[in-house]
Amino acid sequence: SNKFFLPESEMPTQWYNVAADLPKPMNPPLHPGTLQPLTPDDLSAIFTMSLIEQEASQERWIDIPEAVLDKLAIWRPSPLHRARQLEAFLDTPAKIYYKNESVSPAGSHKPNTAIAQAYYNKEAGIKRLTTETGAGQWGSALSFACSQFDLECMVYMVRCSYDQKPFRKSLMHLWGGEVVPSPSKLTKAGQAVLDKDPDCPGSLGIAISEAVEDAVTHPDTSKYALGSVLNHVLLHQTVIGQEAKKQLELAGERLPDMVIGCVGGGSNYAGLAFPFVRDHLDGKGVQLIGVEPCACPTMTRGRFAYDFGDMAMMTPLLPMHTLGHSFIPPAIHAGGLRYHGMAPLVSWLVQCGVIEPRSVHQLEIFEAAVTWARTEGIVPAPETSHALATVIDEAKKCKETGEEKVILVNFSGHGHFDMGSYDAYFDSKLHDYAYPEEAIKEAMADLPDVTIQE
Amino acid sequence: SNKFFLPESEMPTQWYNVAADLPKPMNPPLHPGTLQPLTPDDLSAIFTMSLIEQEASQERWIDIPEAVLDKLAIWRPSPLHRARQLEAFLDTPAKIYYKNESVSPAGSHKPNTAIAQAYYNKEAGIKRLTTETGAGQWGSALSFACSQFDLECMVYMVRCSYDQKPFRKSLMHLWGGEVVPSPSKLTKAGQAVLDKDPDCPGSLGIAISEAVEDAVTHPDTSKYALGSVLNHVLLHQTVIGQEAKKQLELAGERLPDMVIGCVGGGSNYAGLAFPFVRDHLDGKGVQLIGVEPCACPTMTRGRFAYDFGDMAMMTPLLPMHTLGHSFIPPAIHAGGLRYHGMAPLVSWLVQCGVIEPRSVHQLEIFEAAVTWARTEGIVPAPETSHALATVIDEAKKCKETGEEKVILVNFSGHGHFDMGSYDAYFDSKLHDYAYPEEAIKEAMADLPDVTIQE
Repeated sequence: SNKFFLPESEMPTQWYNVAADLPKPMNPPLHPGTLQPLTPDDLSAIFTMSLIEQEASQERWIDIPEAVLDKLAIWRPSPLHRARQLEAFLDTPAKIYYKNESVSPAGSHKPNTAIAQAYYNKEAGIKRLTTETGAGQWGSALSFACSQFDLECMVYMVRCSYDQKPFRKSLMHLWGGEVVPSPSKLTKAGQAVLDKDPDCPGSLGIAISEAVEDAVTHPDTSKYALGSVLNHVLLHQTVIGQEAKKQLELAGERLPDMVIGCVGGGSNYAGLAFPFVRDHLDGKGVQLIGVEPCACPTMTRGRFAYDFGDMAMMTPLLPMHTLGHSFIPPAIHAGGLRYHGMAPLVSWLVQCGVIEPRSVHQLEIFEAAVTWARTEGIVPAPETSHALATVIDEAKKCKETGEEKVILVNFSGHGHFDMGSYDAYFDSKLHDYAYPEEAIKEAMADLPDVTIQE
Repeated sequence: SNKFFLPESEMPTQWYNVAADLPKPMNPPLHPGTLQPLTPDDLSAIFTMSLIEQEASQERWIDIPEAVLDKLAIWRPSPLHRARQLEAFLDTPAKIYYKNESVSPAGSHKPNTAIAQAYYNKEAGIKRLTTETGAGQWGSALSFACSQFDLECMVYMVRCSYDQKPFRKSLMHLWGGEVVPSPSKLTKAGQAVLDKDPDCPGSLGIAISEAVEDAVTHPDTSKYALGSVLNHVLLHQTVIGQEAKKQLELAGERLPDMVIGCVGGGSNYAGLAFPFVRDHLDGKGVQLIGVEPCACPTMTRGRFAYDFGDMAMMTPLLPMHTLGHSFIPPAIHAGGLRYHGMAPLVSWLVQCGVIEPRSVHQLEIFEAAVTWARTEGIVPAPETSHALATVIDEAKKCKETGEEKVILVNFSGHGHFDMGSYDAYFDSKLHDYAYPEEAIKEAMADLPDVTIQE
């Protein structure tokens, strides 16, 4: 069989919280002013209390509300596919399974948390969510989720993406989201940037500042929503790995030998991999591999330190791998992986030796994407293709060694809105980026001077 | 439950040939020169013999080759969804089920026949398939299928679409297809048009002529492939309705009260509806409704007559509903429904009173598409939205009458490559077209004068 489906009755009814299973306790997030561990109150201006509780929870299992399950069931459980065409093409003894998160209405894993966040905010009486988006995956997922719960959605979209990827914006409009290019005149933060540079192309850092300011200045109606990095966001993604585990059983497999995913802020990979962390720790031979771009090598070349989540230094200090909050990654086409920092939970598992980080170059990921499309058919997003390049690499190694490894990968999103990037690849307009040594060195000098336990 | 999956082991292993169950015998296709019924030899220059046999077959069931089943299993069986969010929004007692053909790699039902056609041509030793494409759905489906069977694919894409919808072209490139704007300098037919008008925007009729000429002038390597209209193409689509029937049983339903789909050349609707024709004829209360654009009202306002399939009058004469082969439909955004003719099998079932034709206006279909996206989440293609508008209309009638009708609709394709059309709708740039009375009158005067049995 090529595909393994679960009935809706076997959807996971709890999220798995890896915080309960860490080999050693994490560093806490810190208040940027006092440098003291963050309290729930510190976050209450931008997040609703249920989400703040999840952010700090140490409970292993957290119930998924019925209303969230109902909405997730629009597209979940997502299918698990065996990549038989690819296996045949590579002539590998490896067995490659991909968890297809591209079947959601927004085309990626992002709606898993967007639905949950929209639900909790609706329950708390919030009328409107604000957020930022780069390439547009998260903004469209949140617009979709808000349409399901009859919430308004306000998206600050990095201006260069707003101009270059008009159809992601169209998708947000279709679901009723409001989208403005950032920097905008709607916030003080945006206005200040525009005063200095009216043609500023924007950045994720600026867009975050605008979305946060918008929420804080509309306390009666609005909260802010984030699409990755934070603990509660990663928590909501763990339905992916829980489903995959059951589906691998249906496929007659025990546990995977390798669990592979791409890593930007960390949420899609966490969603697939966290439910396998206990198996890894129990010595069951499950190798966990997170893949990032060589041009933005947060885990592989960054420092584990306290840093801000945004460029404008408005967020708490997070204990994570970082290239420095002022680092601007090169313009690779995997916009979703262009982030200076990393989810603290993923960072900590890298520190603990549980997750093995790798990095791949841009041309290799597009080569892998084309191989994938011409064998498995389905078109991968550039972000996802980082994971696929590593899968192909490992499957080739299996051919050399003869090992019949079971490889599980997160097919985190389709590339239907990324065809311009494929055009650039076929027109030989893409290139690899050298390790951005100087830029990272400069940004590292801006790291806050706070002691961290390693 | 919201979704009903079949295991691969329950995929249909035969195609259903409705030719065996027609209430009265059809008019045969005619040779355009002799006006005699077409012989297999007449078609052998452009089609391979297995497909010609299927075109003429009267067998009720035709085995699907193993190799075709293997490739269809990349995405089939496709899911059947219950549209619960839409039902709740409309507050209707109707039960709405949609068969989701958008899950194929190319995003529509088209690969169902593309895979079969590629297979039979590969078996016959053909190296290369030529075809035309308008908006690009068929061209991308055939490129995908050719990549699966290691065939070359040559696509003549109507020039205005080539310029307006660059990302469908990118998709074909990704799957290894070669795409040229039509009219091109590669064929005599194209060159002749360019000599008269170097800026000609092209038409489906011209592109068909080019693709056929290309195949005929490369007899050692190439055949031609068509994406709709012909009997063998409709045959290959009948997996849709066969699966839907089983899935409705899983959902606890007996038979649907209504089977609804959009109709351009007729293949997606035939694929869903033909397996229910026997039930309709047996008086089981299954209403079959095919929906076309008011701007191209082939079934609802056209004439049932012998006509050419293309503008250049190169094809056989087909017995069908037609607006005249020289009719150029208005520039509605559902490019896949802009065809002057109709599948002879669909036409004949309309003549026999089995299929009920309807037509809807452009603004109504976009309104329906937005309602659908904001309830069910998934983004429909403009073509598909013709069916959805009719579903919404019927579900509202059920609210008035209190009838709990079971409505089955073909969700024939997603709109990920049609976001420009949605933008135009939201920017109020779209309008409805008056019935193109004069243009149709003129085109009707060009109909060949051949007697047909009505």
